[in-house]
Amino acid sequence: MRCQMIGVIGGGKCPAEIENIAEEVGSLIAQKGGILICGGLSGVMEAASRGAKRSKGTTIGVLPGNRKNDANPYIDIPIVTGLADARNIIIVRSSDAVIAINGKYGTLSEISFCLAYNVPVVGLKTWNVDPAIIQASDANDAVNKAFDLASN
Amino acid sequence: MRCQMIGVIGGGKCPAEIENIAEEVGSLIAQKGGILICGGLSGVMEAASRGAKRSKGTTIGVLPGNRKNDANPYIDIPIVTGLADARNIIIVRSSDAVIAINGKYGTLSEISFCLAYNVPVVGLKTWNVDPAIIQASDANDAVNKAFDLASN
Amino acid sequence: MRCQMIGVIGGGKCPAEIENIAEEVGSLIAQKGGILICGGLSGVMEAASRGAKRSKGTTIGVLPGNRKNDANPYIDIPIVTGLADARNIIIVRSSDAVIAINGKYGTLSEISFCLAYNVPVVGLKTWNVDPAIIQASDANDAVNKAFDLASN
Amino acid sequence: MRCQMIGVIGGGKCPAEIENIAEEVGSLIAQKGGILICGGLSGVMEAASRGAKRSKGTTIGVLPGNRKNDANPYIDIPIVTGLADARNIIIVRSSDAVIAINGKYGTLSEISFCLAYNVPVVGLKTWNVDPAIIQASDANDAVNKAFDLASN
Repeated sequence: MRCQMIGVIGGGKCPAEIENIAEEVGSLIAQKGGILICGGLSGVMEAASRGAKRSKGTTIGVLPGNRKNDANPYIDIPIVTGLADARNIIIVRSSDAVIAINGKYGTLSEISFCLAYNVPVVGLKTWNVDPAIIQASDANDAVNKAFDLASN
Repeated sequence: MRCQMIGVIGGGKCPAEIENIAEEVGSLIAQKGGILICGGLSGVMEAASRGAKRSKGTTIGVLPGNRKNDANPYIDIPIVTGLADARNIIIVRSSDAVIAINGKYGTLSEISFCLAYNVPVVGLKTWNVDPAIIQASDANDAVNKAFDLASN
Repeated sequence: MRCQMIGVIGGGKCPAEIENIAEEVGSLIAQKGGILICGGLSGVMEAASRGAKRSKGTTIGVLPGNRKNDANPYIDIPIVTGLADARNIIIVRSSDAVIAINGKYGTLSEISFCLAYNVPVVGLKTWNVDPAIIQASDANDAVNKAFDLASN
Repeated sequence: MRCQMIGVIGGGKCPAEIENIAEEVGSLIAQKGGILICGGLSGVMEAASRGAKRSKGTTIGVLPGNRKNDANPYIDIPIVTGLADARNIIIVRSSDAVIAINGKYGTLSEISFCLAYNVPVVGLKTWNVDPAIIQASDANDAVNKAFDLASN
């Protein structure tokens, strides 16, 4: 049986408070035996990856550019797409559930694809534009809900 | 000098009222000398294409599938991508301005990419989730605003 | 009925002799009423586009980058993908027939996709690695063969 | 330090003799501590994945379609793209070296992208169309050469 793959999406820049939440989310995903999949860059993506590695998890970064070295230092498996933001779709489609943390328009596009493809999406301090986005109160609540909803 | 390329986005299924609006939008784009670019399928896309052809305009359909025959009958230039919804990004990036009419999650993803890439986006009876989406009152207002804002 | 769309593929850099051939190919495509679709950049793509415009044709450039301004000055309709070389597939899939002129590995990838998708491909001083690539002796021969084979 | 990622490319259908070679290639990649990345489907991809799992390796399948269930049963990490053959580019770009086994036009497109991006490519009973394709005599030779050349 395959491990659950949990996507974490959010901005490439974010305040320290959000980074802390993202790191805790990443750590909890790893503790529950999930594989973290994200965009592989900085901000929320890097904090979640750092958290996952702290808890001995596995991290996948689906990169928009052409070079493995674009990945943050906590990515085990860089997937190099060269597709710019079209890579957002790959993150969503490959996730059994997604946790959206904060974020701006790129994150909104990813949330939209979750909704379009019926990939469960849990929101933490992010776009609350549709009732199908499951709102969470904190990192622990978000990770629990993501695993409960995961389609795998 | 190149013609303005105006994107029209919206659902593949829509009520008759929305189809009428989309057809008028397409017709007005053509009357103003713009090229219509859309997803090339049914619903809002087909109605807008029909309107553009009625006014002797040119229509481009950026198709998600593998076959030219997927295009609605009002598409002059089918662009066949085979990329599924990643083609949404191409519509946005190729448009000098976008008019969003009604629509659901796929349309929300396209609006998100407009906002992310600073492509002006005018909304008609659609997602009103960010102040950067310019709201329009009717087809005429939408097309006027799109041409005013077009980045070309 | 839609116009035939003829793809022209080849290197972004090429010797003057090849540019002359590409320009003649573009001109002949336009004279026969075809729409030229290409990668929109320099070298063979620019020469073919220039030829097509000289003969009052229509030109489409499917660009790898994020900006319309990347297009050469002879492109009427820039399709902006941001997908880097994944755009090669779009050129092939959108063409009723393809003419390959000279070119290196990028061109070989496009020829491969023609063969994989059963899009007729005519070769002029290019990769001769499979009998399904129809070899042509000069620009005139290539364009005649492309129109004869076009799937539209 | 990250593990080497070795791509294995080849046809979705292949004779038993080729399957045996692919399975041995997959097994040897795993024995040397590499991660196998492939297209995730049948034929050469499935045989190589089976070999890697037999030797306790990790396998990544970059799928063309929309569903995880398209992956063969030996894939640990399905990457779901929905991009059809544009996913070939992702396999190439994510590999530190590629081993091409047999295969037809899709494989030729992947070899072309290897050459275009300077990803080392080792060939086993496959397209021999350019001196930059390193020819190997058997599975062992191919895997040794791939690890020697790997860019990581």
